[in-house]
Amino acid sequence: MTCESEAIQPLNLPGGKPDLSGMSVVADGGVASALGFRASGVHAGFRADPNRLDMALVVADEPASCAAVFTQNVFCAAPVIVSRQHLDDVSFGTARALVINSGCANAATGDLGLQAARDTASIVGNAVGCPANEVMVASTGVIGVHIDTSVFESGTPLAVKALSRDGGASAARAIMTTDTHPKEFAVSFSGDGVGYDGATFTVGGMAKGSGMIMPNMATMIACITTDAPIESYALHSALKRAVERSFNKITVDSDTSTNDSCFAFASGAAAPGGSPFDSQGLAFARFEAALAAVCETLARQMAADGEGATRLITVRVAGAADDADADAAARTIANSPLTKTAIFGHDANWGRIAAAAGRSGARFEQSGVSIDIMGIPVLRGGLPVPFDEEEALRRFERPEIDIDVDLGAGASSTTIWTCDFSYDYVTINGDYRT
Amino acid sequence: MTCESEAIQPLNLPGGKPDLSGMSVVADGGVASALGFRASGVHAGFRADPNRLDMALVVADEPASCAAVFTQNVFCAAPVIVSRQHLDDVSFGTARALVINSGCANAATGDLGLQAARDTASIVGNAVGCPANEVMVASTGVIGVHIDTSVFESGTPLAVKALSRDGGASAARAIMTTDTHPKEFAVSFSGDGVGYDGATFTVGGMAKGSGMIMPNMATMIACITTDAPIESYALHSALKRAVERSFNKITVDSDTSTNDSCFAFASGAAAPGGSPFDSQGLAFARFEAALAAVCETLARQMAADGEGATRLITVRVAGAADDADADAAARTIANSPLTKTAIFGHDANWGRIAAAAGRSGARFEQSGVSIDIMGIPVLRGGLPVPFDEEEALRRFERPEIDIDVDLGAGASSTTIWTCDFSYDYVTINGDYRT
Repeated sequence: MTCESEAIQPLNLPGGKPDLSGMSVVADGGVASALGFRASGVHAGFRADPNRLDMALVVADEPASCAAVFTQNVFCAAPVIVSRQHLDDVSFGTARALVINSGCANAATGDLGLQAARDTASIVGNAVGCPANEVMVASTGVIGVHIDTSVFESGTPLAVKALSRDGGASAARAIMTTDTHPKEFAVSFSGDGVGYDGATFTVGGMAKGSGMIMPNMATMIACITTDAPIESYALHSALKRAVERSFNKITVDSDTSTNDSCFAFASGAAAPGGSPFDSQGLAFARFEAALAAVCETLARQMAADGEGATRLITVRVAGAADDADADAAARTIANSPLTKTAIFGHDANWGRIAAAAGRSGARFEQSGVSIDIMGIPVLRGGLPVPFDEEEALRRFERPEIDIDVDLGAGASSTTIWTCDFSYDYVTINGDYRT
Repeated sequence: MTCESEAIQPLNLPGGKPDLSGMSVVADGGVASALGFRASGVHAGFRADPNRLDMALVVADEPASCAAVFTQNVFCAAPVIVSRQHLDDVSFGTARALVINSGCANAATGDLGLQAARDTASIVGNAVGCPANEVMVASTGVIGVHIDTSVFESGTPLAVKALSRDGGASAARAIMTTDTHPKEFAVSFSGDGVGYDGATFTVGGMAKGSGMIMPNMATMIACITTDAPIESYALHSALKRAVERSFNKITVDSDTSTNDSCFAFASGAAAPGGSPFDSQGLAFARFEAALAAVCETLARQMAADGEGATRLITVRVAGAADDADADAAARTIANSPLTKTAIFGHDANWGRIAAAAGRSGARFEQSGVSIDIMGIPVLRGGLPVPFDEEEALRRFERPEIDIDVDLGAGASSTTIWTCDFSYDYVTINGDYRT
């Protein structure tokens, strides 16, 4: 313990918060903030409680570019299979509607479940006036229970009737399961100077968490809409990149769901008649920045609202030999129950962080490692640094806890978001189904 | 839901319990049951509570064959480095003693920690009358705190004085951290008909858990002794195989420790003057079976005594495409916090088990999967089977919960042991250090 703690500077690693430069946050923004979209959330009857919304509908006024990324779980749910089929094989990257129910996942339901998801698309397509294959379907809830399509039959007219530009908040609420609050966000950016002078474009979205959350694509249901003119192929590429750095970088409990789906729709309604954004151009770069900001904000909201969470934890790893090592180290730390319970207990236990990094498979030497917890240097060159435990306890009162780790082995870095592990996680998951 | 549950037979997968055929369990057996060994456990002063034993010593009367396997964590502790060095570079596979302290892990302690571990070996070597490099060293406890070698100086004479054939129980108690009870086991087998007529050989051991438990070598500190005549090279091979199928198949919280070490000593004292077991012969096969039984029994004890555990969970996976897939599926199920909390909550939630298998990376089709929980068929061909929830609740009262999964994709199988996830896990790890 030869270090002088006052001489040691915090690592101050970059990243961890969405970069909102060059854009404006839309007040109360959500999935229907972009022009050309309406949304609603209603109680259809998937849940017993009549006060609980359980069916969300997002509808594009005209056929919109559509892209999606889905769970890679072998036990993927029926709506995942059907939506993927509609998008890839049938509708060629355009769609009109997304319907999401909570209360039943329609997963592990075999051919009956597939038929139910296809019937759902037909019911919704008939109601909004489009072919079934222009309807995306998603479900969230309990696995292994057959979904009652008659609830879609009675619920869809209600949902269609409720569609509005202001319906995003209800839609976000209708897709919640163990989430404690809805998750929405939207930003806008200007087309000035990038070929769309005078136009303002919006990107907004909604998402739900909050258990069975560890991305292997993404780990949730999310829907992003934009009124920028984006072709479906470019939309798919942009969505994949954004998801990789946002929803795929959060973990609550290392469990990847059977139903994870992230949809994106682009209406082009903010530049009617304008040509689509050139995917190599400056306008597209602004769109991608806005998409990243929306996805990262929703991802952080999901991590912060993880089941039983009391703190959002941001794990930033730098100095990794390559991107895979950075991800492995950050993800192993973020998934470590010992680290997560320590933070719940307000214990600046860097030993558990170091041990997690050490077993992650990332290549580094003990003597190269530095760690900060909440900006307080606790490890330098693999050795403990004396620190002010009282100050650490004070910083644990913050809603967000940062863990910065420099592996000293290269130039790659990443950020992973997670949450702490509390008694409530055990309560919520110990009797979710019963 | 077309299946008739009464027509469906349980999977009844093999494995999960140690095979004790051809051997006898030694009453109150432990690390000093084999001839040629003495052990002790004393309070040396690493812990404040004078009633808590914190230093264990195992001594062979004569230089014994010695083998060990260690953690693969980059942040491996100083005693791991020193013991590995003594074994590989210096003593050529023989050793006289193993000293283990609890209360301080001597991990993340740099050169000072290495020197402390070397000094410890010297202190113990002087006291038992052997070179320092014939002493193995292990530590368990808090990471990042320097160990006080003066405690070894004052404690070693006490430990040497207490050495006895009956000292195994105290030794097993002295290495406990958050373990709720000591872990010991021993079996004996006959040399009749395999070249050692009239001789009885014993294999016994002790181990400690119970947090930061997921094997990447093994995940604990354990010591096995035998009075069979085994050469160190053969002992090492046998130990590696046994650890692979026992300690490396348990997981409490997916965290692999910095200090994991499993030592084995062979004195040959049960066949004085006899030739060593031929590693291709029948006597060696009996030894390996006994070693496997001891390692598996200790491993099951560790999983059952995982931090906060209320149930031992045995996850058996069959029908995997290869061994790696079997391990991945079983381990992912066993590490799933959702599965572990469901079992704590007595919820036969096969959906979480299926989802965990589905994200494990193992190759299979949904439609090929069958799952039993506690011998009750709950999934066949990827579809739910109606089952008697009352009967399931009754079976949850058992101390051991079996999860059997047939992936229907091949001929490989494995067993992983774990425990449920309770409020107490959060309590224990939320304020371990503070």
